[in-house]
Amino acid sequence: MTTRDTSAPGKPVIGVFDSGFGGLTVLRALLPLIPGAHYIYLGDTARLPYGSKSRETITRYALSSARFLADQGAELLVIACNTATALALDDLKANLSIPVIGVIEPGAQAAKAQAEADVLVLATAATTQSRAYTQALTELGLKATEKACPLLVPLVEEGWIDHRVNAAVTLEVLRIYLLEALADAPRASTLLLGCTHYPLLKPLIETTLRNLHHPMRVIDSAEATAQAVAAHLTTTASTAAPTCEFYATDSIEKFQRLGSNFLGHPLGEVRLIDLGG
Amino acid sequence: MTTRDTSAPGKPVIGVFDSGFGGLTVLRALLPLIPGAHYIYLGDTARLPYGSKSRETITRYALSSARFLADQGAELLVIACNTATALALDDLKANLSIPVIGVIEPGAQAAKAQAEADVLVLATAATTQSRAYTQALTELGLKATEKACPLLVPLVEEGWIDHRVNAAVTLEVLRIYLLEALADAPRASTLLLGCTHYPLLKPLIETTLRNLHHPMRVIDSAEATAQAVAAHLTTTASTAAPTCEFYATDSIEKFQRLGSNFLGHPLGEVRLIDLGG
Repeated sequence: MTTRDTSAPGKPVIGVFDSGFGGLTVLRALLPLIPGAHYIYLGDTARLPYGSKSRETITRYALSSARFLADQGAELLVIACNTATALALDDLKANLSIPVIGVIEPGAQAAKAQAEADVLVLATAATTQSRAYTQALTELGLKATEKACPLLVPLVEEGWIDHRVNAAVTLEVLRIYLLEALADAPRASTLLLGCTHYPLLKPLIETTLRNLHHPMRVIDSAEATAQAVAAHLTTTASTAAPTCEFYATDSIEKFQRLGSNFLGHPLGEVRLIDLGG
Repeated sequence: MTTRDTSAPGKPVIGVFDSGFGGLTVLRALLPLIPGAHYIYLGDTARLPYGSKSRETITRYALSSARFLADQGAELLVIACNTATALALDDLKANLSIPVIGVIEPGAQAAKAQAEADVLVLATAATTQSRAYTQALTELGLKATEKACPLLVPLVEEGWIDHRVNAAVTLEVLRIYLLEALADAPRASTLLLGCTHYPLLKPLIETTLRNLHHPMRVIDSAEATAQAVAAHLTTTASTAAPTCEFYATDSIEKFQRLGSNFLGHPLGEVRLIDLGG
């Protein structure tokens, strides 16, 4: 899965971009769904996290990352980062000549397919401030409440998501965030995970909802995004095994170590690139 | 305190640099100690946090930030960031023609003046991985144990540091980190706060140490760094009120809002600059 199969001219080349590791949960959903593709993944780890930065800064970072993937031969670009999708998708579409698919519209569509009532969205501060989920869900006729959860990404990256390793702290943080959110959206029955780090918290989120006696359907947008990508591909992909290339803008050791938790298996080689940040 | 007093030619111009807001705790210590100076503060907020990034990336960021301050007329540069000091101080000294003072050596000297036995250092992952505190403390004849605490900066930035606002979570995180650290350094009697965000946690840290029945002297390096700067200045500064200019590389609204917690009073005008990240 680490070298590019140049002998398959019909093989689609899909670029996947995130500020860090979280987008690997989207790649994880893509691999079984579109196995006959070549994937180029870029984690802009030198400039992460995007979640606390401004629209102008995030757009500048996302554009340079997207251009790198297009230059590497990507024929379709997946913005596997909620913050970059929320703040930079329109600019990316306007400035690139290849199709660009973000994670928010597919996530909103998946909520629409499930929802009986209100939708609660958990995301980073930058994503919630953009109101992108509220806009996407409102256009689909749903009621949206967004909740910023700045501590969840650091808790996932610290690895405190396992019952053997300080998960009690993460459960307490989730309890506080969900209580605050449900006070604003007491009838929400669908919970949309608006950050690609959050799928790793899904078991703890479900435990917290049980403890709060507030059952909800929990949707993560990785699977929905993978299906949107599959629907977009006009060529029928071969059934060959997928191939992957990985690039990061900072420490490749850390990327390999943390990334395997998100992808679900080892990454293999990761190449370091400099985007001039 | 917001405009530069160009009518005082003998007024020293001191540049203060951090990846974000934390360095404002160093500026806060400088203002009463060297009131007759003009300060230029730069928070490289577009690229924060430095604490999780590599030496090469941090050095590149710190150099561009330091050059900006020298270009603005700084005659002395304070690296008010433990991570940048740990990883980039030597490169900054080699590449700048003005004196450069970091926070680690003054912090280590303050520990030396206090310590009866072992010193425990709490810091970011990048700072502890650099072993800069171990080196500085060992050279002074002290025994050092370093503990990485990646969740503390996000907790401070979330504002969960007040007994009215979810401080119980922060106390539990501190309990876990300090228990882990004290298992490695059971006889440590001095605790050195190796991150400029941590002074805002000092009351909660002292509470946690009391609850653990492990009293320690808690030293933050901001005060020690300010004294090292004062000792370096050859001209006797006037007794005029200090003047300050503030620059940030990302959202100035957030910088003004969060920054006042670190400085202890409102910042006034903050100017946005682009360092090309």
